[in-house]
Parts: sequence; C-alpha cells; structure tokens
Amino acid sequence: MIIIMQTQATSDQIQSVEDEIQRIGLRPFMNPGVERKVIAVLGALDAKKADLVEHFYSFPGVDRVDLISHLWKLASREYHPEDTIVDVCGVKIGGVQVVVSAGPCSVESEEQMIEIALAVKASGAHLIRGGAFKPRTSPYAFQGLGEEGLKILAKARDESGLPVVTEVMDTHDVELVAEYADVLQIGTRNMQNYSLLKRVGQTRHPVLLKRGQGCKLRDQVMSAEYIIAEGNPNVILCERGITTFEDSTRNTTDINAVPVLKQWTHLPVMVDPSHATGDWRYVSSVSKAAVAAGADGLLVEVHNDPKRALSDGPQSLRPEQFDDLMRQLRRVAEAVDRTV
Amino acid sequence: MIIIMQTQATSDQIQSVEDEIQRIGLRPFMNPGVERKVIAVLGALDAKKADLVEHFYSFPGVDRVDLISHLWKLASREYHPEDTIVDVCGVKIGGVQVVVSAGPCSVESEEQMIEIALAVKASGAHLIRGGAFKPRTSPYAFQGLGEEGLKILAKARDESGLPVVTEVMDTHDVELVAEYADVLQIGTRNMQNYSLLKRVGQTRHPVLLKRGQGCKLRDQVMSAEYIIAEGNPNVILCERGITTFEDSTRNTTDINAVPVLKQWTHLPVMVDPSHATGDWRYVSSVSKAAVAAGADGLLVEVHNDPKRALSDGPQSLRPEQFDDLMRQLRRVAEAVDRTV
Amino acid sequence: MIIIMQTQATSDQIQSVEDEIQRIGLRPFMNPGVERKVIAVLGALDAKKADLVEHFYSFPGVDRVDLISHLWKLASREYHPEDTIVDVCGVKIGGVQVVVSAGPCSVESEEQMIEIALAVKASGAHLIRGGAFKPRTSPYAFQGLGEEGLKILAKARDESGLPVVTEVMDTHDVELVAEYADVLQIGTRNMQNYSLLKRVGQTRHPVLLKRGQGCKLRDQVMSAEYIIAEGNPNVILCERGITTFEDSTRNTTDINAVPVLKQWTHLPVMVDPSHATGDWRYVSSVSKAAVAAGADGLLVEVHNDPKRALSDGPQSLRPEQFDDLMRQLRRVAEAVDRTV
Amino acid sequence: MIIIMQTQATSDQIQSVEDEIQRIGLRPFMNPGVERKVIAVLGALDAKKADLVEHFYSFPGVDRVDLISHLWKLASREYHPEDTIVDVCGVKIGGVQVVVSAGPCSVESEEQMIEIALAVKASGAHLIRGGAFKPRTSPYAFQGLGEEGLKILAKARDESGLPVVTEVMDTHDVELVAEYADVLQIGTRNMQNYSLLKRVGQTRHPVLLKRGQGCKLRDQVMSAEYIIAEGNPNVILCERGITTFEDSTRNTTDINAVPVLKQWTHLPVMVDPSHATGDWRYVSSVSKAAVAAGADGLLVEVHNDPKRALSDGPQSLRPEQFDDLMRQLRRVAEAVDRTV
Repeated sequence: MIIIMQTQATSDQIQSVEDEIQRIGLRPFMNPGVERKVIAVLGALDAKKADLVEHFYSFPGVDRVDLISHLWKLASREYHPEDTIVDVCGVKIGGVQVVVSAGPCSVESEEQMIEIALAVKASGAHLIRGGAFKPRTSPYAFQGLGEEGLKILAKARDESGLPVVTEVMDTHDVELVAEYADVLQIGTRNMQNYSLLKRVGQTRHPVLLKRGQGCKLRDQVMSAEYIIAEGNPNVILCERGITTFEDSTRNTTDINAVPVLKQWTHLPVMVDPSHATGDWRYVSSVSKAAVAAGADGLLVEVHNDPKRALSDGPQSLRPEQFDDLMRQLRRVAEAVDRTV
Repeated sequence: MIIIMQTQATSDQIQSVEDEIQRIGLRPFMNPGVERKVIAVLGALDAKKADLVEHFYSFPGVDRVDLISHLWKLASREYHPEDTIVDVCGVKIGGVQVVVSAGPCSVESEEQMIEIALAVKASGAHLIRGGAFKPRTSPYAFQGLGEEGLKILAKARDESGLPVVTEVMDTHDVELVAEYADVLQIGTRNMQNYSLLKRVGQTRHPVLLKRGQGCKLRDQVMSAEYIIAEGNPNVILCERGITTFEDSTRNTTDINAVPVLKQWTHLPVMVDPSHATGDWRYVSSVSKAAVAAGADGLLVEVHNDPKRALSDGPQSLRPEQFDDLMRQLRRVAEAVDRTV
Repeated sequence: MIIIMQTQATSDQIQSVEDEIQRIGLRPFMNPGVERKVIAVLGALDAKKADLVEHFYSFPGVDRVDLISHLWKLASREYHPEDTIVDVCGVKIGGVQVVVSAGPCSVESEEQMIEIALAVKASGAHLIRGGAFKPRTSPYAFQGLGEEGLKILAKARDESGLPVVTEVMDTHDVELVAEYADVLQIGTRNMQNYSLLKRVGQTRHPVLLKRGQGCKLRDQVMSAEYIIAEGNPNVILCERGITTFEDSTRNTTDINAVPVLKQWTHLPVMVDPSHATGDWRYVSSVSKAAVAAGADGLLVEVHNDPKRALSDGPQSLRPEQFDDLMRQLRRVAEAVDRTV
Repeated sequence: MIIIMQTQATSDQIQSVEDEIQRIGLRPFMNPGVERKVIAVLGALDAKKADLVEHFYSFPGVDRVDLISHLWKLASREYHPEDTIVDVCGVKIGGVQVVVSAGPCSVESEEQMIEIALAVKASGAHLIRGGAFKPRTSPYAFQGLGEEGLKILAKARDESGLPVVTEVMDTHDVELVAEYADVLQIGTRNMQNYSLLKRVGQTRHPVLLKRGQGCKLRDQVMSAEYIIAEGNPNVILCERGITTFEDSTRNTTDINAVPVLKQWTHLPVMVDPSHATGDWRYVSSVSKAAVAAGADGLLVEVHNDPKRALSDGPQSLRPEQFDDLMRQLRRVAEAVDRTV
C-alpha cells in the first residue's frame, strides 16, 4: 500500500500518517526523491487491506491511497514512477547514456589490470570491472587476489579515471570492499544471500545485483527490495543468463527480462552478455540485442590475453574486439535514442 | 564427410566419386549452388571415417575431403559457407533486408484478414501470416477455418500482394496447403514430427521451421537436415521461445540462438517475438533485440481487435502499434547495416 | 460442465438433455462406464457458464450440474471418479497389478526380438516393447525396420504370449501398426501432433501417450483429452523424463508427475525409467521409486547385447539385470499393496 | 589425484610423500577413515597430471596413484569407497536405517514446537527440524524468531530426546546456531555461498547441504567439497527439488539425483519431499519414492495447524498424516533392505 499526500500537505499531517502506520504495527517508508510525499506502508497487510485504504484516505492531507499489485513495494513503478538514475562518481546509470563496464573476470596483476583499464577507456567504456574475491565452483580453483586485488583495482581507477565495479561475497568484507570499489556487485550465487543483501543495504554504495541463474525475475526484484528496504535505493539489476536445457551456450540470455524489469520497477537494468553466453563469439550479437531491447548498460569481459586468463577466458573479448563492439553499440544506441 | 572437387573436375570424375560412395553403402548429395562441386556423404560412417577420407582423397579430381564436426551435414556452414537466401515470390529471406511477416494468429474472416493484410502492407510488412489449421492444446478450442481459411489467405495475398505464410499440421494436408501458401510453417509442436518434415522436404516450397519449445538448437538443426536431405534446401529457422522456469513471460526468448544458428548453419533465422513473450507490451523490445542480434526476419502477430481475437489476443499488436514498431525497426536495422 | 442424471432418469429425459446441449451449439459426451448417466458438455462455454448450470438444472431427471475446474473434461477425475483400467489382451493396466513392459529400443532382428521376449517373459514381464518405426533426431540414423519390424514383433508375441507395445509416428501408418500391435505408442516428439492423436482416437486400440520432453503435465492431459474426445477411452499416460538444466542424466524423471496425474485424472500412469535417466545404472533405483510413488506400470529397455544395440544401448538392461530388477520390484510393489 | 600407500607403508614414507606434494605447490589431504593411507592431492594440477602420476609412483611405500575423473576429490567414491555415515548424537545417517527428520517450517512458539516434537517422536521420527532463521523471498515476510527460536528448539530436543536440524544463513551466526543445533542446515539459497560453506567446514558439526534450486548436481558436490576441504567430513546432501518449466508443483523432485549422488560420492543423501512438491497431497508418494530409490533419509514438514502456519502451510502434513506416512515408509524401507 502507498499513501500519496497532497502537494500542499503539512509536515504535521505527514507525521500523523506516519504515526498511525506505526501504531497499527506497520512501517512507513518515505520516498525521498519525488515532488509530493509518497509513503510506502511496509509489513504484512493481509486481509485488512481494503479497510486500511479507507482508513488512511480519511486522514487530512492524504490525496490518494493505492494498493500495489506486486509483492515488491519500494522497487515498484507504482510507488516510484520515474526511472531511478544511479550516480557512480558522476557516471549516471539509468539515464540516456548506455553505460558500459568492461574488464577481466579476475584481477590477475597490476600490469594486466592497468593495461586493460586504459584500453577499455580508450574505447569508450565508462566503468571498469574485475574480480578480487572470486566465487568459484571448485575450492581448488583460483579464488582471486583478495585485498591485493582491491588495491590493484583502485590503482587502475586512478590511472584510468574509470570507477570500479567489483564483487563482494561476504558480509565481513562489505566495509573493506566498499573502501576500494565504487559499485558493490552481488554475484549470481549470492542473489538470495539475505544477510549480504541487508548489509549492502546499510551502505549507500551503488549495488549491482546479478540475477541468480535459477531465480525468477520476481525473486530478483524481491532481493532488490531487501536492499532498498534497508535504506539504500542505489540498486542496479543485472541479467546474466539463466540455466535452461539449452546447452550450446553456457546460459540462456533472458532478453525478455529487460522490458519486464523496466515495466515492473524503476531501477536501471544492465546485461552481462559474457556470462549469459559464455562464448566471446556471441557477445557482440547479444550486446547489441540488449541495447536495442532497452538495457541501461552492459558488463563485458575484456582480457588482453584470453587464452591465459585465470578464469572465464573463452568468454572474454580482446581489447581490439571490444573497441569494435563499442563502435557498433554506438550505432545501435542511437537507433533507440540513446548514447553510449 | 564432404568431398570438395577441384574446380576443373570433369563430370566423369564426379560421377565415379558418386558411384564409389554408393558402392560402399552411403549416399552422395550434391550441393547445387556453389561454383565448385561439393559432395556430402550421408549415412552412418562410424569408425571407418579416417580411412574413408584417405580413400576418397586418392580419387582423381578430388581437391579435399573434410570431416564435418557436427551431426548435421547439409545444414552446415562447413558444407555450404555462403548464407542461404530463400526466395519467396521475390521476397528474399537471408539477405540484407530483414523480412517481416505480420498478421493474426488465426484467420477469422475474409474481412478481418484483408483489413489486416492491407494495414501491415501499408506499414511495410513483406509477408502476411495467419493460421488456417491451428494446433490448439485443447480439443475444444477454435481449431481454425481449415481450407476456407486457406482461401481467405489467398484472397488477402491477391489484395495486398504479400506472399502468405501458414502452418501445415498433417502430412495429408501438405499438398492442399502448398496450393495456397507461399511458405509452409512447421509449428513448435511438430518440430520433430519427422513424417511431416520428410513430406515438406519433398516439395520445393519454402519451409519456416519453428523451434520446439522444449528442444535444443541442435535438434532444430537436425530437423532442418531432415527437410534438406529430402531435397528441399529452402528452410528458414525460427526462434519462438523456449520453456524455462521463468513465468513472467509465456516463454523465454533464446536470443543467443540467433548468433549460434548463424554460426552453425547457412540458413536464414527468424524470430517470433509474439509467441516468445506472449505479451504485446514486450514485443517491440524483443523485436528490436532480434534485429540487432542479427536475425533475418520477424514473425509478428497483428490483430485489428486483439480483445476479440479467437486465439492469442494478448500477444497481438494493433495495426497502429505495428506501424510504430516498423518505424523503430528501420532505424535498428540500419544500425546493423540492414534494411527492413 | 458435466450433467449428472438421477439414477432413475428415463432415456427420454436423457435424450432431451442431449438434444438441448446440441441445440445450443455444444456437444454431449456420455460416460459409458458408470452406474448413473453422466453427460459431459464439450465445446467452448465461455461467459455463459453460470447461466447454463441453472438452465440444465431445471431439466427433469437432472440430479446435479457441475463445472469442472480443469481444462480437461473427459480425462478428469471429477467426470470419472473411478480409476480407468485399460485391458490389453487380458493384461489390466491401472488395477492392482503393476504392469511391466520390456524389450529393446529398436527391433533389430527376429532372433534378437524372440530371445529378448522369452527372457523378459521368464522374468515376469507382462508386455513386450520394441520400435519398428523409430523417430530419430538424425535423418542418417537407423530409422527402424518398418513393417518388417512389426511382423517380427507379432512373431515375438506369438512365441512369448506377451502383447506388444510399439510406436506409431504417422497418421498414414495407424491402420498398419494397429494390425500388429496391441498398444499404440505415441512418442514424446508427437505428444502434440494433434492429427495423430485424433487418428488413434478413432481406433479403440489402447494408446500409450508419452509426455513431450518440454511439455507440462496439463498439456499431456489435454493431449489425452484429444484421444478420448474422439471416442477412445483407452489412454495410458507415460512419464519419460523432461528436459531441465541438469545434465548428469539424459532427462529429469518428474516423479511428482505420478501423484499429480493420478489426482487430476482417472487414467493409468506408467513410467519409463530408461529414457528418463538414459543410463542403465540408474534404471533400478528409478523403477523402484516409480512403483513406490504409485505408478501403474513401467516401460523398461532390455537388450541382449546393449553394446551393439542400434539405438539407446547405454540405457538398456541386460536380461539378467532385468530379472534382478523384477525380483526387487515385487517387494516394493507389495509394500504399497500392489503386485507385479 | 589420489595416492594410495601400501598397507605396510611407514610414517616416514607417508611424510616424504606429503612433503613432496607441498614442495610442488599442492596440498596433501589424508583420508582418516580407511585402513590404508590414501592421500588426496589438492590444487590445480593442469597439464602435468600424467607426469605427476609417474613421479609419485616412484616414491617408496606408494602402492598406486590414481587420477580422479571428477572435479571433486574428497567427496569422491574413488577416494573414499565406503559409504560415509554421519553420526548425529547417536543417530546414524547413511547406514541401514532411513533417518526421518520432521517438524514445522518455522519455529513459531515453544508450545507448538514441543507439541510437534513429541508427536513426530511418537510416530518414529529420528530428528526434529524447524527454522529459527528463515530465508524469506520477501523482506516483509516473517523472518523467524532468531535466537529465541534456537532456544525453543533446544527445549524441544530436551523434551523429545530428538536431535535438532536448523538452518544457518550467515557466517556471523554459525557459532550461535552450532551451540543449539545438532545439524547445521545450509539452505537452497546459500548452496553456493562459499564464505558460509567454509565457515561450517571449520566446525565439526554435521552439515545438511540443500541443493540450490537452479544448481546442477555437480555444483552441489563441489559445494560439499568446499566443506570437506576445510576439514569437516560430516556432510549430508539433500535433494529438495529444482526449478523447471513444470508448474503443477512448486519444484520438480529430481529423483535421479539419488542414484547419481550415491554413485559419485560416499556422502549420505536425504530428500525433502515437502519443498520438492510444495503440496502435502504429494508428500507421501514422493517420500516412498525417495526411500525406494535409495535415499538415506527424509526431511518432512509437519505442522499441528497447517492453515495457520506462518510459512509453507500448504506443504505441511498434520501429525496424524505423518504417522500414517511413517507406517507406510517402514514397509517400503523393508522392501529395499532398510529400516526406518
């Protein structure tokens, strides 16, 4: 349920609505970004919904009371009709510009990271990505450089001027990663790690929330809701492919997700064509498709020597391929009234 | 296995290779469309492959003998490196132009069909579609007008000048449908109805082969192989969404399928965003994505009164929405060096 | 909608209800097997349902009018509460006995078929199975012996006394296959080949309807409805595994399907553990699971020389393994008050 | 790679093999439970495998060097051929007895928990289950009683004598939960939360590792490997259903998983029919199927008032239904030479 106050509602009127919400055991949540005050009412409403609508409608200063049809409230377009634009050190995700984040799967060395960062910057990327903490299916596989990797990412940012996206896997590490990174990435395996979601929700850092590979879109939005409900509205949703019976590609890119998420929520939607296909030969096609479908950004793996990459080499573009991709993306973006 | 003859190979030399193929219990298949003769060797080769390569290599006039890594031969890019262009009464599918087929799910009346045909033609569609024989999950649902529907389609073609795509469901009906239709559609439920595939393979009619909703891409290509092996090379593959756990859309559009199929085969690839999403609100996004990804055509449902459609109303565009879509598609096509 | 007549309803009263059903453009379908007359009303009822209930309730002799909540009518437990027992030359499928059909994937030779038939009979199988017409993904794979295979199956039946289950793939062949076979099998690829379903519905032969590997249970029941609506009530549903992301087995056995189908319908349910796992090592476990879950029968692949089988060798049991399985199944069946 | 020492190998010989393993940058891991010493060699072996086999084979005291074909080592049957039996306060999981854990989805009150504990004990359950920390898709849904819930579980254990299984969701809480619980459950959403896996691997508490609903079996086994590699061999695998296109049940029970996991690993395998079906009407069938397939245990939801359950009511059995189930399970277990 959301309560839309009149534009001229006084702060006393707003306060008394909030007090009443709390009195009946629910939780008021104020949408800070809009002209008129909109108060989301959080908590289990159950059967009494219709009564409550009428109840709050009678309060002075209330303009309208709406039931929200979805399970999510704060992530909902009904509650927040305008597109959310997440600002990452000046890079705006969710606006006219399609934002491209590029870099290797894992941070391997300072030299590698800086070389790639400068290369993707030259091609027009807006953010760099690279894993310092790597969630690997095998305990014996390379697990990332950890804090050393974070330091390398920070250096790459200093050299290139591009903000950094990197994954955080553990509630213990949120503070540490937030010190170095500009966007906290929640990986596919942790999409429903609610402790971690709550913890990043307590920061104000932008969060890139990747879809769990076996998770429905509605579960992804509910995970975003966990973060926003803790007070952090800076959530970017990321489609990275789902598990299906089709085995010619590593995952199946759910391109339908782009218009569905844009309709359900006000959050920016990015697509990761590298994980969603698992094959560099298909990254260009799927990247262009994502932009044409309305995605607000891309996450592309780029490696200067894919054959020797410590992880996910087969899905990485070489810098010159990435450069070519950016050239193509600019044309597609323009065709849908966006820029890259 | 394919045997590539030297450009100057004589017809006697070719004949003796073909004779030898037959002598050892296999079947030669001549690629008619290329400059130099390429002979596909069909049948179960099993263990003797390596020996056979050497065996045929020693024949006069033979330039090269290649093993084909995939299960399919005639559909393979290795056997036929150039893109196949299927000519439908002058409309070329698989070339520079992205071909759009539009129309209602079911043919309902002459008036409806002609009205829609003229409308989509005015918007720039190249083909009309409409079901006369409808495969319906329920035996009690509207099953299509049958031959009467075919006649209406033919009239709509006469009025609009647009060739007709329509489904054939039964081997018995192939001749009848081929009399009226310009493209024979094999529906998702019949993708592995091998009797039907063989029967349409015995015609020279273009065939639009929709993917089974639970079928892997490799199975779809093998079904195309059935048709080509009967002598009909005019096969168009169609992605129409697959069944997955995601339930916010009717099916999941497998956009990866576009670059995968274009890499594996030389056949044109179309996308049906209407069935792949099941929701008219997502058709525009997914159509643009398909074109950006490299699809050679689209199959779009258009109905003049979606709410009263006898089938699949919720996924149909109204003519004015289709017109708007075509306008957008032109820009996206141009951005990937195509036209619409 | 179903109309339940009073036990003492006269045939005139029944007739006038049937006439009225036809008068309003619907189709009456009489359940032949129950004590009191139950008439299913087939056709698209749409909005007028509630009115019709009242309308028919006022007819003399009518005891009750029920709306059926599912899309299927004739297959529904509401319409036909008792279990259907399909009689195959005296073998009763759907009763206390769990019926086991065993044999090779393909009929390869008379000698092979008879040897296997006698072996599985000695172990207690009730039916033999074997493919004469084989739906193969590749047009170059062994396609079955065709009519010769059917003749071999008939001989194997004569020798062993076990009725024969074999697949029919083409409407043209239904008559031919029905001449030799006791149960007509509809394969997974043809579950929604409605022409074929209607054609076998016009016979009175028992039909084994395998689930399409990408098809929902409700679609399988609707396909059964097609057969029953043509007048053939002798339908056996068969779970044979579905396509999922799990790739350690060929398919995923949907064991939930057993209780779901038994609850929704009155039809017997068999399980094919050979195709559902694709691996002989797992056939025994899954067979026992199926019987414990309440399946009415099993379809097990048995081959005397799996390594040389022309199709699906890796999932076939050798006769001695089958014998051991039967021994185990007897104990499990007894534990759920069944016999084998 | 595993190195099997001769039975009479001296500790010096063993030591020198271990030293060599470390010298070349790998990690030795000693299987403690078997008669002769078996050393697993952990770490990325890559290309040098064949050389290493020969290298270690030449060491004194070495009997055999085997490459393990799977990605997992310590969970592998090749490394540890005997079944692992996990001892939970005297209840042995993985032996002849099929172990049943029963209880409500969430701990709601002391009264409820004790009533259910005593009821399921009377019916023959061996463990009680109940959630204190609940991973809920919605942030507004009941999240469990937390530590209070753990205390109630401990009381229910004291009253009933049945050890307790409960979920831990956060690395921070592992110590706390381990204080009260006898088995630490890792839920489906955390199967690939590697920080949490490592943390429970550092305890010696038995761990029940539920399969991620979109995760392959091989990923589940790799997650078990994470736990064992930290030094905790007490891992129980749990099949709880996977996400597929079938929507008549909440998830699809992958019954194939039982024989596959028993073949690949030496770990006990339990099945959770309540989550795997999401419907109490199917729990009995699927429970019997699991036991017949060879499962070592079941996790069954039981609630004294399912309609008022704070979570997952529709899939809970009432105590009298559970009692009836246990009676049936005893018969099925006996039919496969097990007890309940």
